[in-house]
Amino acid sequence: MRVGSMTHQKGLFISFEGVDGSGKSTQARMLYDHLRSIGYPVTLTREPGDWSEGRKLRDILLNGDLKHGKTELFLFLADRCENLSQVIIPSLSRGEVVLCDRYTDSTLAYQCFGRGFNLEEVESLFCWSGFPVPDITLLLSISQEESLSRMKGRGTSDRLESDLSLMSKVSLGFRSLSDRYPDRICILDGEGNPDKVFSRVLEAVERIFW
Amino acid sequence: MRVGSMTHQKGLFISFEGVDGSGKSTQARMLYDHLRSIGYPVTLTREPGDWSEGRKLRDILLNGDLKHGKTELFLFLADRCENLSQVIIPSLSRGEVVLCDRYTDSTLAYQCFGRGFNLEEVESLFCWSGFPVPDITLLLSISQEESLSRMKGRGTSDRLESDLSLMSKVSLGFRSLSDRYPDRICILDGEGNPDKVFSRVLEAVERIFW
Repeated sequence: MRVGSMTHQKGLFISFEGVDGSGKSTQARMLYDHLRSIGYPVTLTREPGDWSEGRKLRDILLNGDLKHGKTELFLFLADRCENLSQVIIPSLSRGEVVLCDRYTDSTLAYQCFGRGFNLEEVESLFCWSGFPVPDITLLLSISQEESLSRMKGRGTSDRLESDLSLMSKVSLGFRSLSDRYPDRICILDGEGNPDKVFSRVLEAVERIFW
Repeated sequence: MRVGSMTHQKGLFISFEGVDGSGKSTQARMLYDHLRSIGYPVTLTREPGDWSEGRKLRDILLNGDLKHGKTELFLFLADRCENLSQVIIPSLSRGEVVLCDRYTDSTLAYQCFGRGFNLEEVESLFCWSGFPVPDITLLLSISQEESLSRMKGRGTSDRLESDLSLMSKVSLGFRSLSDRYPDRICILDGEGNPDKVFSRVLEAVERIFW
Protein backbone atom coordinates (compact mmCIF):
# COMPACT_ATOMS: atom_id res chain seq x y z
CA MET A 1 0.00 0.00 0.00
CA ARG A 2 1.28 3.39 -0.95
CA VAL A 3 2.46 5.56 1.92
CA GLY A 4 0.38 8.69 2.43
CA SER A 5 1.94 12.14 2.31
CA MET A 6 3.27 13.77 5.45
CA THR A 7 0.05 15.67 6.02
CA HIS A 8 -2.15 12.59 6.21
CA GLN A 9 0.04 9.65 7.21
CA LYS A 10 -2.75 7.44 8.46
CA GLY A 11 -5.42 7.53 5.77
CA LEU A 12 -5.59 7.36 2.02
CA PHE A 13 -6.65 10.42 0.03
CA ILE A 14 -8.22 9.86 -3.41
CA SER A 15 -9.51 12.72 -5.56
CA PHE A 16 -11.83 12.36 -8.55
CA GLU A 17 -11.40 14.84 -11.40
CA GLY A 18 -12.75 15.49 -14.86
CA VAL A 19 -15.00 17.81 -16.85
CA ASP A 20 -18.68 18.19 -16.03
CA GLY A 21 -20.58 15.07 -16.99
CA SER A 22 -17.49 12.85 -16.78
CA GLY A 23 -19.04 10.70 -14.08
CA LYS A 24 -16.97 11.78 -11.09
CA SER A 25 -19.83 11.93 -8.62
CA THR A 26 -21.31 8.59 -9.76
CA GLN A 27 -17.97 6.81 -9.61
CA ALA A 28 -16.97 8.35 -6.29
CA ARG A 29 -20.30 7.18 -4.84
CA MET A 30 -19.85 3.67 -6.31
CA LEU A 31 -16.36 3.41 -4.84
CA TYR A 32 -17.64 4.69 -1.50
CA ASP A 33 -20.35 2.01 -1.43
CA HIS A 34 -17.90 -0.69 -2.51
CA LEU A 35 -15.24 0.17 0.08
CA ARG A 36 -17.83 0.32 2.84
CA SER A 37 -19.26 -3.01 1.76
CA ILE A 38 -15.86 -4.67 2.19
CA GLY A 39 -15.30 -3.03 5.57
CA TYR A 40 -13.08 -0.03 4.88
CA PRO A 41 -13.73 3.16 6.88
CA VAL A 42 -14.40 5.70 4.16
CA THR A 43 -15.57 9.31 3.82
CA LEU A 44 -17.08 10.77 0.67
CA THR A 45 -16.91 14.53 0.16
CA ARG A 46 -17.09 16.97 -2.71
CA GLU A 47 -16.07 20.49 -3.66
CA PRO A 48 -17.41 23.06 -3.40
CA GLY A 49 -19.69 23.39 -0.43
CA ASP A 50 -19.51 20.18 1.61
CA TRP A 51 -19.12 21.74 5.09
CA SER A 52 -21.35 23.47 7.62
CA GLU A 53 -21.82 26.81 5.82
CA GLY A 54 -20.63 25.55 2.45
CA ARG A 55 -24.01 25.47 0.76
CA LYS A 56 -24.12 29.28 0.76
CA LEU A 57 -20.65 29.42 -0.76
CA ARG A 58 -21.49 26.81 -3.40
CA ASP A 59 -24.55 28.83 -4.34
CA ILE A 60 -22.47 32.01 -4.85
CA LEU A 61 -19.88 30.07 -6.89
CA LEU A 62 -22.26 28.25 -9.18
CA ASN A 63 -25.00 30.82 -9.59
CA GLY A 64 -23.60 34.21 -8.57
CA ASP A 65 -23.04 36.82 -11.28
CA LEU A 66 -19.36 37.32 -10.44
CA LYS A 67 -17.53 40.17 -12.17
CA HIS A 68 -13.90 39.87 -11.00
CA GLY A 69 -11.74 37.05 -12.35
CA LYS A 70 -10.14 36.19 -9.03
CA THR A 71 -13.33 36.12 -6.92
CA GLU A 72 -14.04 32.57 -8.03
CA LEU A 73 -10.48 31.46 -7.28
CA PHE A 74 -10.49 32.89 -3.75
CA LEU A 75 -13.91 31.39 -3.03
CA PHE A 76 -12.70 27.95 -4.11
CA LEU A 77 -9.61 28.34 -1.92
CA ALA A 78 -11.75 29.36 1.06
CA ASP A 79 -14.07 26.45 0.45
CA ARG A 80 -11.16 24.01 0.27
CA CYS A 81 -9.59 25.31 3.49
CA GLU A 82 -12.80 24.71 5.34
CA ASN A 83 -13.60 21.34 3.77
CA LEU A 84 -10.09 20.18 4.66
CA SER A 85 -10.39 21.33 8.28
CA GLN A 86 -13.94 20.15 8.86
CA VAL A 87 -14.02 16.94 6.81
CA ILE A 88 -10.90 15.68 5.03
CA ILE A 89 -8.09 16.09 7.58
CA PRO A 90 -10.11 14.67 10.52
CA SER A 91 -11.11 11.66 8.41
CA LEU A 92 -7.55 11.01 7.21
CA SER A 93 -6.32 11.35 10.80
CA ARG A 94 -8.71 8.59 11.81
CA GLY A 95 -7.12 6.41 9.14
CA GLU A 96 -10.03 6.54 6.73
CA VAL A 97 -10.05 6.46 2.96
CA VAL A 98 -11.23 9.90 1.81
CA LEU A 99 -12.85 10.24 -1.62
CA CYS A 100 -13.06 13.84 -2.80
CA ASP A 101 -15.21 14.75 -5.81
CA ARG A 102 -13.09 17.59 -7.30
CA TYR A 103 -10.02 19.04 -5.60
CA THR A 104 -6.91 21.08 -6.51
CA ASP A 105 -6.69 19.86 -10.12
CA SER A 106 -10.15 21.30 -10.82
CA THR A 107 -8.91 24.69 -9.67
CA LEU A 108 -5.86 24.41 -11.93
CA ALA A 109 -7.89 23.17 -14.90
CA TYR A 110 -10.67 25.76 -14.59
CA GLN A 111 -8.83 28.81 -13.25
CA CYS A 112 -5.44 28.41 -14.92
CA PHE A 113 -6.06 26.54 -18.18
CA GLY A 114 -9.63 27.81 -18.42
CA ARG A 115 -9.37 31.40 -17.26
CA GLY A 116 -5.67 32.08 -17.78
CA PHE A 117 -4.22 32.45 -14.31
CA ASN A 118 -0.59 31.51 -13.90
CA LEU A 119 -0.26 27.84 -12.90
CA GLU A 120 2.85 28.23 -10.74
CA GLU A 121 1.31 31.17 -8.88
CA VAL A 122 -1.87 29.26 -8.09
CA GLU A 123 0.14 26.20 -7.07
CA SER A 124 2.18 28.38 -4.75
CA LEU A 125 -1.10 29.50 -3.17
CA PHE A 126 -1.99 25.82 -2.60
CA CYS A 127 1.40 25.33 -0.99
CA TRP A 128 1.02 28.47 1.16
CA SER A 129 -2.38 27.20 2.26
CA GLY A 130 -0.92 23.82 3.25
CA PHE A 131 -3.28 21.78 1.05
CA PRO A 132 -2.36 18.08 1.25
CA VAL A 133 -1.61 16.34 -2.04
CA PRO A 134 -3.86 13.35 -2.85
CA ASP A 135 -2.27 9.89 -2.85
CA ILE A 136 -3.93 9.29 -6.17
CA THR A 137 -6.14 11.29 -8.50
CA LEU A 138 -8.56 9.47 -10.79
CA LEU A 139 -9.13 11.59 -13.89
CA LEU A 140 -12.20 10.46 -15.78
CA SER A 141 -11.76 11.27 -19.45
CA ILE A 142 -14.67 11.66 -21.86
CA SER A 143 -15.08 13.41 -25.21
CA GLN A 144 -16.60 16.88 -25.34
CA GLU A 145 -19.55 15.43 -27.28
CA GLU A 146 -20.19 12.89 -24.53
CA SER A 147 -19.90 15.58 -21.86
CA LEU A 148 -22.44 17.77 -23.66
CA SER A 149 -24.78 14.85 -24.23
CA ARG A 150 -24.69 13.86 -20.55
CA MET A 151 -25.22 17.45 -19.40
CA LYS A 152 -28.24 17.81 -21.69
CA GLY A 153 -29.54 14.51 -20.37
CA ARG A 154 -29.36 15.90 -16.84
CA GLY A 155 -31.38 18.90 -17.88
CA THR A 156 -29.29 21.10 -15.62
CA SER A 157 -26.49 23.49 -16.30
CA ASP A 158 -24.88 25.95 -13.96
CA ARG A 159 -22.78 29.00 -14.75
CA LEU A 160 -19.54 27.08 -15.29
CA GLU A 161 -21.03 24.29 -17.34
CA SER A 162 -22.71 26.70 -19.72
CA ASP A 163 -19.47 28.06 -21.22
CA LEU A 164 -18.42 25.68 -24.02
CA SER A 165 -15.19 27.43 -24.93
CA LEU A 166 -14.16 27.26 -21.30
CA MET A 167 -15.06 23.56 -21.13
CA SER A 168 -12.75 22.79 -24.05
CA LYS A 169 -9.82 24.58 -22.39
CA VAL A 170 -10.57 22.81 -19.10
CA SER A 171 -10.53 19.42 -20.79
CA LEU A 172 -7.13 20.11 -22.36
CA GLY A 173 -6.00 21.46 -18.99
CA PHE A 174 -6.75 18.19 -17.22
CA ARG A 175 -4.71 16.36 -19.90
CA SER A 176 -1.79 18.74 -19.35
CA LEU A 177 -2.00 18.19 -15.61
CA SER A 178 -1.82 14.42 -16.08
CA ASP A 179 1.39 14.93 -18.09
CA ARG A 180 2.71 17.21 -15.34
CA TYR A 181 1.93 14.77 -12.52
CA PRO A 182 2.08 11.28 -14.12
CA ASP A 183 2.82 9.52 -10.82
CA ARG A 184 -0.26 10.92 -9.10
CA ILE A 185 -2.87 11.39 -11.83
CA CYS A 186 -4.31 8.24 -13.35
CA ILE A 187 -6.38 8.84 -16.52
CA LEU A 188 -9.33 6.50 -16.88
CA ASP A 189 -11.66 6.10 -19.85
CA GLY A 190 -14.95 7.55 -18.57
CA GLU A 191 -17.07 6.49 -21.54
CA GLY A 192 -19.46 3.56 -21.40
CA ASN A 193 -21.99 2.63 -18.74
CA PRO A 194 -21.27 3.33 -15.05
CA ASP A 195 -20.54 -0.34 -14.22
CA LYS A 196 -18.00 -0.59 -17.02
CA VAL A 197 -16.30 2.62 -15.89
CA PHE A 198 -16.36 1.43 -12.29
CA SER A 199 -14.42 -1.71 -13.22
CA ARG A 200 -11.63 0.63 -14.43
CA VAL A 201 -11.85 2.72 -11.25
CA LEU A 202 -11.63 -0.39 -9.11
CA GLU A 203 -8.66 -1.75 -11.02
CA ALA A 204 -6.80 1.54 -10.53
CA VAL A 205 -7.64 1.69 -6.83
CA GLU A 206 -6.69 -1.95 -6.25
CA ARG A 207 -3.24 -1.16 -7.61
CA ILE A 208 -2.85 1.31 -4.72
CA PHE A 209 -4.36 -0.81 -1.99
CA TRP A 210 -2.48 -3.97 -2.77
CA MET B 1 -5.94 67.94 -4.89
CA ARG B 2 -3.93 64.80 -4.57
CA VAL B 3 -3.50 62.76 -7.73
CA GLY B 4 -5.21 59.35 -7.62
CA SER B 5 -3.28 56.14 -8.18
CA MET B 6 -2.92 54.68 -11.67
CA THR B 7 -5.87 52.36 -11.16
CA HIS B 8 -8.40 55.11 -10.46
CA GLN B 9 -7.11 58.28 -12.06
CA LYS B 10 -10.44 60.05 -12.19
CA GLY B 11 -11.98 59.62 -8.74
CA LEU B 12 -10.83 59.86 -5.16
CA PHE B 13 -10.68 56.75 -3.01
CA ILE B 14 -11.01 57.16 0.77
CA SER B 15 -11.03 54.20 3.17
CA PHE B 16 -12.17 54.30 6.80
CA GLU B 17 -10.41 51.97 9.24
CA GLY B 18 -10.35 51.20 12.93
CA VAL B 19 -11.40 48.64 15.51
CA ASP B 20 -15.03 47.72 16.03
CA GLY B 21 -16.88 50.55 17.71
CA SER B 22 -14.44 53.20 16.47
CA GLY B 23 -17.14 55.03 14.54
CA LYS B 24 -16.11 54.19 10.97
CA SER B 25 -19.61 53.58 9.68
CA THR B 26 -21.05 56.67 11.37
CA GLN B 27 -18.26 58.92 10.10
CA ALA B 28 -18.31 57.46 6.58
CA ARG B 29 -22.05 58.11 6.44
CA MET B 30 -21.62 61.67 7.76
CA LEU B 31 -18.94 62.40 5.17
CA TYR B 32 -21.13 60.88 2.46
CA ASP B 33 -24.04 63.14 3.43
CA HIS B 34 -21.77 66.18 3.65
CA LEU B 35 -20.11 65.67 0.26
CA ARG B 36 -23.46 65.07 -1.40
CA SER B 37 -24.87 68.19 0.21
CA ILE B 38 -22.11 70.32 -1.35
CA GLY B 39 -22.56 68.70 -4.76
CA TYR B 40 -19.84 66.04 -4.97
CA PRO B 41 -20.68 62.76 -6.71
CA VAL B 42 -19.98 60.20 -3.99
CA THR B 43 -20.42 56.48 -3.39
CA LEU B 44 -20.50 54.89 0.06
CA THR B 45 -19.63 51.20 0.36
CA ARG B 46 -18.43 48.83 3.06
CA GLU B 47 -16.65 45.53 3.49
CA PRO B 48 -17.58 42.79 3.63
CA GLY B 49 -20.71 42.06 1.63
CA ASP B 50 -21.73 45.21 -0.24
CA TRP B 51 -22.38 43.63 -3.67
CA SER B 52 -25.07 41.53 -5.31
CA GLU B 53 -24.40 38.20 -3.55
CA GLY B 54 -22.30 39.72 -0.78
CA ARG B 55 -24.83 39.33 2.00
CA LYS B 56 -24.37 35.55 1.94
CA LEU B 57 -20.60 35.96 2.12
CA ARG B 58 -20.84 38.50 4.96
CA ASP B 59 -23.04 36.08 6.86
CA ILE B 60 -20.48 33.26 6.51
CA LEU B 61 -17.64 35.59 7.56
CA LEU B 62 -19.29 37.10 10.61
CA ASN B 63 -21.32 34.17 11.89
CA GLY B 64 -19.89 30.99 10.34
CA ASP B 65 -18.06 28.58 12.62
CA LEU B 66 -14.88 28.59 10.51
CA LYS B 67 -12.15 26.09 11.42
CA HIS B 68 -9.25 26.86 9.03
CA GLY B 69 -7.20 30.01 9.61
CA LYS B 70 -7.01 30.98 5.95
CA THR B 71 -10.71 30.55 5.11
CA GLU B 72 -11.49 33.98 6.50
CA LEU B 73 -8.63 35.58 4.57
CA PHE B 74 -9.67 34.07 1.23
CA LEU B 75 -13.31 35.04 1.81
CA PHE B 76 -12.30 38.65 2.50
CA LEU B 77 -10.15 38.66 -0.67
CA ALA B 78 -13.03 37.26 -2.74
CA ASP B 79 -15.39 39.80 -1.26
CA ARG B 80 -12.99 42.66 -2.04
CA CYS B 81 -12.48 41.51 -5.64
CA GLU B 82 -16.19 41.60 -6.23
CA ASN B 83 -16.85 44.86 -4.38
CA LEU B 84 -14.08 46.49 -6.42
CA SER B 85 -15.48 45.22 -9.72
CA GLN B 86 -19.12 45.86 -8.98
CA VAL B 87 -18.95 49.08 -6.95
CA ILE B 88 -15.62 50.81 -6.34
CA ILE B 89 -13.86 50.75 -9.75
CA PRO B 90 -16.96 51.79 -11.74
CA SER B 91 -17.58 54.68 -9.31
CA LEU B 92 -13.96 55.85 -9.44
CA SER B 93 -14.03 55.61 -13.24
CA ARG B 94 -16.99 57.98 -13.26
CA GLY B 95 -14.89 60.43 -11.26
CA GLU B 96 -16.72 59.93 -7.97
CA VAL B 97 -15.43 60.10 -4.44
CA VAL B 98 -15.63 56.57 -3.04
CA LEU B 99 -15.86 56.08 0.72
CA CYS B 100 -15.13 52.52 1.80
CA ASP B 101 -15.92 51.39 5.35
CA ARG B 102 -13.03 48.92 5.92
CA TYR B 103 -10.56 47.88 3.19
CA THR B 104 -7.08 46.33 2.90
CA ASP B 105 -5.79 47.65 6.24
CA SER B 106 -8.53 45.76 8.07
CA THR B 107 -7.30 42.54 6.45
CA LEU B 108 -3.72 43.31 7.50
CA ALA B 109 -4.74 44.32 11.03
CA TYR B 110 -7.05 41.33 11.64
CA GLN B 111 -5.38 38.57 9.65
CA CYS B 112 -1.70 39.50 10.04
CA PHE B 113 -1.40 41.34 13.36
CA GLY B 114 -4.45 39.56 14.81
CA ARG B 115 -4.07 36.02 13.53
CA GLY B 116 -0.38 35.91 12.69
CA PHE B 117 -0.21 35.67 8.91
CA ASN B 118 2.87 37.12 7.29
CA LEU B 119 2.29 40.77 6.35
CA GLU B 120 4.46 40.77 3.22
CA GLU B 121 2.79 37.60 1.92
CA VAL B 122 -0.69 39.00 2.36
CA GLU B 123 0.36 42.31 0.78
CA SER B 124 1.75 40.38 -2.18
CA LEU B 125 -1.69 38.75 -2.53
CA PHE B 126 -3.23 42.25 -2.63
CA CYS B 127 -0.74 43.19 -5.33
CA TRP B 128 -1.38 39.97 -7.30
CA SER B 129 -5.11 40.72 -7.09
CA GLY B 130 -4.60 44.24 -8.42
CA PHE B 131 -6.28 45.97 -5.47
CA PRO B 132 -6.04 49.76 -5.87
CA VAL B 133 -4.43 51.67 -3.00
CA PRO B 134 -6.66 54.32 -1.37
CA ASP B 135 -5.69 57.96 -1.84
CA ILE B 136 -6.14 58.41 1.88
CA THR B 137 -7.08 56.17 4.79
CA LEU B 138 -8.77 57.68 7.83
CA LEU B 139 -7.90 55.56 10.85
CA LEU B 140 -10.25 56.28 13.75
CA SER B 141 -8.45 55.63 16.99
CA ILE B 142 -10.23 54.88 20.28
CA SER B 143 -9.16 53.18 23.50
CA GLN B 144 -10.03 49.54 24.07
CA GLU B 145 -12.27 50.60 26.97
CA GLU B 146 -14.20 52.95 24.69
CA SER B 147 -14.49 50.26 22.01
CA LEU B 148 -15.89 47.78 24.54
CA SER B 149 -18.26 50.34 25.98
CA ARG B 150 -19.63 51.23 22.53
CA MET B 151 -20.01 47.56 21.55
CA LYS B 152 -21.93 46.85 24.74
CA GLY B 153 -24.10 49.88 24.05
CA ARG B 154 -24.99 48.43 20.66
CA GLY B 155 -26.04 45.18 22.27
CA THR B 156 -24.55 43.26 19.36
CA SER B 157 -21.37 41.32 18.95
CA ASP B 158 -20.35 39.08 16.10
CA ARG B 159 -17.68 36.40 15.99
CA LEU B 160 -14.79 38.80 15.42
CA GLU B 161 -15.84 41.37 17.97
CA SER B 162 -16.21 38.78 20.69
CA ASP B 163 -12.49 37.95 20.90
CA LEU B 164 -10.88 40.52 23.23
CA SER B 165 -7.32 39.30 22.87
CA LEU B 166 -7.68 39.53 19.10
CA MET B 167 -9.10 43.05 19.38
CA SER B 168 -6.05 44.21 21.33
CA LYS B 169 -3.68 42.84 18.68
CA VAL B 170 -5.78 44.40 15.92
CA SER B 171 -5.65 47.79 17.58
CA LEU B 172 -1.85 47.63 17.83
CA GLY B 173 -1.80 46.39 14.23
CA PHE B 174 -3.58 49.47 12.96
CA ARG B 175 -1.01 51.63 14.79
CA SER B 176 1.85 49.70 13.17
CA LEU B 177 0.25 50.12 9.76
CA SER B 178 0.03 53.87 10.24
CA ASP B 179 3.78 53.88 10.99
CA ARG B 180 4.37 51.77 7.88
CA TYR B 181 2.30 54.01 5.59
CA PRO B 182 2.51 57.49 7.14
CA ASP B 183 1.76 59.27 3.84
CA ARG B 184 -1.49 57.39 3.29
CA ILE B 185 -2.88 56.62 6.74
CA CYS B 186 -4.12 59.56 8.77
CA ILE B 187 -4.83 58.75 12.44
CA LEU B 188 -7.78 60.64 13.89
CA ASP B 189 -8.92 60.77 17.49
CA GLY B 190 -12.21 58.85 17.42
CA GLU B 191 -13.28 59.66 20.97
CA GLY B 192 -15.97 62.22 21.75
CA ASN B 193 -19.38 62.72 20.20
CA PRO B 194 -19.91 62.03 16.47
CA ASP B 195 -20.05 65.73 15.52
CA LYS B 196 -16.76 66.42 17.27
CA VAL B 197 -15.11 63.46 15.51
CA PHE B 198 -16.61 64.54 12.20
CA SER B 199 -14.94 67.94 12.47
CA ARG B 200 -11.61 66.06 12.58
CA VAL B 201 -12.62 63.90 9.60
CA LEU B 202 -13.62 66.94 7.60
CA GLU B 203 -10.40 68.75 8.41
CA ALA B 204 -8.37 65.75 7.18
CA VAL B 205 -10.42 65.41 4.01
CA GLU B 206 -10.26 69.11 3.24
CA ARG B 207 -6.48 68.86 3.30
CA ILE B 208 -6.77 66.41 0.37
CA PHE B 209 -9.42 68.24 -1.60
CA TRP B 210 -7.82 71.67 -1.42
